[in-house]
Amino acid sequence: MTVPGRITVIGLGLMGGSLARALAGAGRVAGWSPEAGEREALGEVGVHAPASLREALEGADGVVLATPLAAVRDLLSMVLEVAPEAWVTDVASLQLPPLRWARAAGMEERYATSHPMTGGEASGFAASRADLYRDAPVWVSTTPGCDPEVRTAVGGLWTGLGARPRDVDAERHDRRMACVSHLPQVVATHLAALLADRDVGPTELGPGGRDTTRLAGSDPRMWRDILALAGPAASEDLRDLARRLESEADRLARGDASTFAEILDRTRTWRRT
Amino acid sequence: MTVPGRITVIGLGLMGGSLARALAGAGRVAGWSPEAGEREALGEVGVHAPASLREALEGADGVVLATPLAAVRDLLSMVLEVAPEAWVTDVASLQLPPLRWARAAGMEERYATSHPMTGGEASGFAASRADLYRDAPVWVSTTPGCDPEVRTAVGGLWTGLGARPRDVDAERHDRRMACVSHLPQVVATHLAALLADRDVGPTELGPGGRDTTRLAGSDPRMWRDILALAGPAASEDLRDLARRLESEADRLARGDASTFAEILDRTRTWRRT
Repeated sequence: MTVPGRITVIGLGLMGGSLARALAGAGRVAGWSPEAGEREALGEVGVHAPASLREALEGADGVVLATPLAAVRDLLSMVLEVAPEAWVTDVASLQLPPLRWARAAGMEERYATSHPMTGGEASGFAASRADLYRDAPVWVSTTPGCDPEVRTAVGGLWTGLGARPRDVDAERHDRRMACVSHLPQVVATHLAALLADRDVGPTELGPGGRDTTRLAGSDPRMWRDILALAGPAASEDLRDLARRLESEADRLARGDASTFAEILDRTRTWRRT
Repeated sequence: MTVPGRITVIGLGLMGGSLARALAGAGRVAGWSPEAGEREALGEVGVHAPASLREALEGADGVVLATPLAAVRDLLSMVLEVAPEAWVTDVASLQLPPLRWARAAGMEERYATSHPMTGGEASGFAASRADLYRDAPVWVSTTPGCDPEVRTAVGGLWTGLGARPRDVDAERHDRRMACVSHLPQVVATHLAALLADRDVGPTELGPGGRDTTRLAGSDPRMWRDILALAGPAASEDLRDLARRLESEADRLARGDASTFAEILDRTRTWRRT
């Protein structure tokens, strides 16, 4: 598999670092991070990683912003200035905000936003790996003003890395992510916080408890940016869940475990679909 | 590694089936399940699996009750009658109830209860595997009336399978399990139920969402038994968690994601300890 053109990856954490590693085997790539240590580490695996952001962007045919959301917004003017012909995408998870910012910056023609359904709770270049995107579904959306060739190029990036891009409506996507992604993140974190408050260490957990709290190790800055924008939408599902748990507490307190067993019977079937 | 004596495993699901498979390589073993299909499957991997429970128990030096809690209670009189000299343990997770039942049955001298911190959401013999117990911590407790040789024999069972038995106070253990084990189970299940109600399929989830809802595939009968006894204790932690999530919903609704980021920063550190 190959990816045509020269791609610049901005941000070398788990998502960007993995992308740069994968592109090193599939095409031409440059990478940049504000952290010198991450640039050096990328250089050590044979990828061009100049100290200057401007230099990394120069001559790019495509740019991937692999940063938290707020940085996506802040980087657009520099991308517009240095690589005015390049297609641009991001991997910041929410889709409406990047599309809105791209339009405001006059870049909607060449902007497609991407949300790869892969990752992990570990962050930073050290956690990155070349096969992170293999077989991962990637939600891609654009505004009506987008050049179809840009959508094709961004799709080609993902298929070239073995991922599975699919078109999606950005509004529906972001609404869906409230329960698909944001709710598990918030729940896992508060469960872990309660365990920490009870002086339960992670090594005391069995495999189930470890999995249920795995997301509690995620990157706070990434999630602050996501929830600053998506928090109001996620809050409704979260309130619903809180009420279900409160009702369950009432039932368990009076010795009724049968209702829980019925719910578990239903979710067991759901897990198998 | 070897396990001395002849062991009878009652119940051939994930826990019992894995135990019987492992013992087949480390000692002498017989297994029994009320399901003919599971007995046949065990016979096919070369383990003695008679159709009669009585026959399976005859001549046993040790008995492992790998059944849900209620069945542990119901089986004790039969074990007492057919294998009056054997040491007995269970793997039913809660520890005070089995110890109480063993004392009531006049078996406390030869009863030690075990809680292996391993497992999985899949259930039944088909999910069992010989290495399930390797390196798993196993909490073991007894009453003061227990014969020290019985504790040694039960410890020898676990070390013989590569697991790591540790003594624990049963009361402290069961209290601890409310947040270590029961809370993640209840939370994962209700999160999955909410997703199912929103028509989100499990394949729509990313790796984080999948892990957070993994326990929602667990065995309802096992959990009905556990929570019928441990529910009141778990309900307090659950109510605490529900209130934290309600407060978080309030914050996210008004656009405050910083508090969540601070909590996540703390749990990220906790995960690394």
